Amino acid sequence: MKLDAVGITNVTYPVRIREKGGALQNTVATISLTARMPSRLRQSCVSVFTTVLSKYRQDMHATVFPELLASVRRELEAEQAGLTMAFPYFLAKEAPVSKTSSLMEYDCAFEGTVGRRNQLFVRVTVPVTTLCPCSKEISAAGAHNQRAEVCLKVEPRGNKFIWLEDLIGLVEACGSCELFALLKRPDEKFVTEAAYNNPMFVEDVVRMVAQKAQAHPDIAWFSIGVESFESIHKHSAFAYVDSRDLTE
Amino acid sequence: MKLDAVGITNVTYPVRIREKGGALQNTVATISLTARMPSRLRQSCVSVFTTVLSKYRQDMHATVFPELLASVRRELEAEQAGLTMAFPYFLAKEAPVSKTSSLMEYDCAFEGTVGRRNQLFVRVTVPVTTLCPCSKEISAAGAHNQRAEVCLKVEPRGNKFIWLEDLIGLVEACGSCELFALLKRPDEKFVTEAAYNNPMFVEDVVRMVAQKAQAHPDIAWFSIGVESFESIHKHSAFAYVDSRDLTE
Amino acid sequence: MKLDAVGITNVTYPVRIREKGGALQNTVATISLTARMPSRLRQSCVSVFTTVLSKYRQDMHATVFPELLASVRRELEAEQAGLTMAFPYFLAKEAPVSKTSSLMEYDCAFEGTVGRRNQLFVRVTVPVTTLCPCSKEISAAGAHNQRAEVCLKVEPRGNKFIWLEDLIGLVEACGSCELFALLKRPDEKFVTEAAYNNPMFVEDVVRMVAQKAQAHPDIAWFSIGVESFESIHKHSAFAYVDSRDLTE
Amino acid sequence: MKLDAVGITNVTYPVRIREKGGALQNTVATISLTARMPSRLRQSCVSVFTTVLSKYRQDMHATVFPELLASVRRELEAEQAGLTMAFPYFLAKEAPVSKTSSLMEYDCAFEGTVGRRNQLFVRVTVPVTTLCPCSKEISAAGAHNQRAEVCLKVEPRGNKFIWLEDLIGLVEACGSCELFALLKRPDEKFVTEAAYNNPMFVEDVVRMVAQKAQAHPDIAWFSIGVESFESIHKHSAFAYVDSRDLTE
Repeated sequence: MKLDAVGITNVTYPVRIREKGGALQNTVATISLTARMPSRLRQSCVSVFTTVLSKYRQDMHATVFPELLASVRRELEAEQAGLTMAFPYFLAKEAPVSKTSSLMEYDCAFEGTVGRRNQLFVRVTVPVTTLCPCSKEISAAGAHNQRAEVCLKVEPRGNKFIWLEDLIGLVEACGSCELFALLKRPDEKFVTEAAYNNPMFVEDVVRMVAQKAQAHPDIAWFSIGVESFESIHKHSAFAYVDSRDLTE
Repeated sequence: MKLDAVGITNVTYPVRIREKGGALQNTVATISLTARMPSRLRQSCVSVFTTVLSKYRQDMHATVFPELLASVRRELEAEQAGLTMAFPYFLAKEAPVSKTSSLMEYDCAFEGTVGRRNQLFVRVTVPVTTLCPCSKEISAAGAHNQRAEVCLKVEPRGNKFIWLEDLIGLVEACGSCELFALLKRPDEKFVTEAAYNNPMFVEDVVRMVAQKAQAHPDIAWFSIGVESFESIHKHSAFAYVDSRDLTE
Repeated sequence: MKLDAVGITNVTYPVRIREKGGALQNTVATISLTARMPSRLRQSCVSVFTTVLSKYRQDMHATVFPELLASVRRELEAEQAGLTMAFPYFLAKEAPVSKTSSLMEYDCAFEGTVGRRNQLFVRVTVPVTTLCPCSKEISAAGAHNQRAEVCLKVEPRGNKFIWLEDLIGLVEACGSCELFALLKRPDEKFVTEAAYNNPMFVEDVVRMVAQKAQAHPDIAWFSIGVESFESIHKHSAFAYVDSRDLTE
Repeated sequence: MKLDAVGITNVTYPVRIREKGGALQNTVATISLTARMPSRLRQSCVSVFTTVLSKYRQDMHATVFPELLASVRRELEAEQAGLTMAFPYFLAKEAPVSKTSSLMEYDCAFEGTVGRRNQLFVRVTVPVTTLCPCSKEISAAGAHNQRAEVCLKVEPRGNKFIWLEDLIGLVEACGSCELFALLKRPDEKFVTEAAYNNPMFVEDVVRMVAQKAQAHPDIAWFSIGVESFESIHKHSAFAYVDSRDLTE
């Protein structure tokens, strides 16, 4: 009986991710590495996986995926090999008015398989502010708002490469306002007013991200999930779409 | 633009689950409730969801799913409504030798959709011991072993109902040994020796659960994931199969 | 060498908590049970702990603590026994305008020791809204706001008993606004405006809770921590005080 | 009313930690930064904190703590400033027989305060194997074993500096066996037999670490907690000691 996936999960490893600007960014990844296994598999798979991971640790990044997966697949004589690599990724951002620079963190991931299926997915989780249109409309002053997380997962078209920076930028333009690590007083005034002037439900955020992702020439498929940590409730508001359901 | 799912997540609620023996078990569920939304959706969806949840809170269990989902769908004029309800579930177990009874906890969930798709999934996560066959074979004495978690998710055939108790029992028979909350000394001797005499890799556990699930007359589809928290490593060993891939 | 604590942690158990109104509420607790051990300890401590826990499972609540701890201590001939029991606790709340009732969840805990020290602590974690005074002051319209969590831990004076309901109510009066599971439109207008008219930093929330706790006749000691999940940042704002530092 | 701590938590930041060998290791830290506040505090504290953090981000490590905290304290005119910085830390380890090198991850932290109290704590969390003495003694063959986590927190004596590498090494010598990321077959035989020949309860691990910490000339105070993820139970075994209680 062949299994879809046998391997190791929850491996933590320092990795370097290539930035759009060309530099290599140091971060720490949580990794899963699996293979679709022939029935006669020797049990050394964990050892093979770990050896391959160790070999690439000095310079592991997205473009290395096909090569790394191909060697796992070859060593194990597996029909298919799969790798997921999730990591915090940092971008320097300028505050909107004072232009003070600070570092924002985004949870990102690469997922790939080589073998029966050859696929690569890129995933970014981007925090934004959502300000409730209903609350604004019915209230004499103010409107409830909160942090929300937008998770955008894309499959690039053909051999196209999509930068994390571009996906993050695409999403940050789609909330009531984007977030910053450091804001001076004029910046705080700016983001407060920007959010108030741009109320959005989670559904609105999903739709806006979906429109931009549909218009992107290098995205073949995407899914978008938004979870908003409501300031007036203990639960979250949530919306989700898969691009395959948009064409029905 | 229609979205696949709009709703609320991370709602915590006391619920009562019907046991195989007939009693109602009190537990606490984490709930997500969503709907596939028409484009003209009024924003009252969160209110509708919460109202419906409140209405069923005194006696919410698996058999209530279709009814609960149908009312959400109707109220929202949605094409589809979906509900996920995850909760700890408790079974009294007798220790293998002393027959002392103690209470074991299992993470369980029901997931359902009503509308374009009418589906119900039942999921159990069951802890077992895995004892490494390789470690036993090559060592003069002893063998490394550890706790592992088996996640079995099934779709019942047609309108069949499958008890959580039956799925848990199916899985517990498939590790090197099952777990107990309370073991006296003769019990501890029993489980230590049972595991030593029954070495299994994560792959072996997946295959054995898969064979039992394939043989079950009321299971239409299943997936099985096993994560073993290796005692000699900081990472986990992992194996997974989807029943659709077994027939290829 | 005597150890401060030996025992078991991460035990999950169904328990019943007595409500202020007299009823017993069913919930699920995460439990740690430890003892300060004599050097000659037999290794049966886990078994003793589990037996005692099993014995009290049908009706375990705060008033049972001294009795439960005393039996653990006696069985193990331990100098001291300690128990922590954390659980979600539910209160029915009426929405401020429509008076619609819904169920709110609060993370609560009892912690106790019997032996060298005889102590009991009661802990509630209560979500509130915080609306930023600075953001309101400098902005033409609106103000950033978000969910915050207030953790109040108290030691009752002497043999006084303090209800969870009373601690939760004390805290809910100290945010920019309290939270509800279900709000109709007039309620949403009410809470939006209430928060806008009552801006508070995390420091303000801590100070207000501290003043009420100081004024409470049955509270001998307390600590207060507030974490606010800022809607304009990815990090949290935080403030903390221990009542012993207020008198210096 | 002065508060013990006002500031920010859950800030994620790339940092560089100096290794014992002299190199700088890149990792990602989760940071809390607080100050004991004068009553007239301006609300710019978050801005000050973030500015100071940003300034040190290119080369932040333990020896920088007093300087970083002193500037926070000065800027805010605070009585006291506090910083906690937790991060995964990686060490290359050789397998015991094959000498194959692989990278192990350890959760580490620095905690410090400057002001009323001047303190620095260093914390390491080290995974080890525990093999149950009772299970070995009573069973015909084998013995249950599992991964355990040892958390050692120390306060260095005077101005002494203690390397993370030394604390990790101290703890790794105190389990039934230490863990490795990569083991060849002869290594797996070695660690299996080593654990079987060295059975230890969680209490034994705590006592052995305590003896080594007491004997260390540069450790003024310590606490040790061990949690063992029992392979035959769903709960954990736990033991804890604070060095102040050893001298009573």
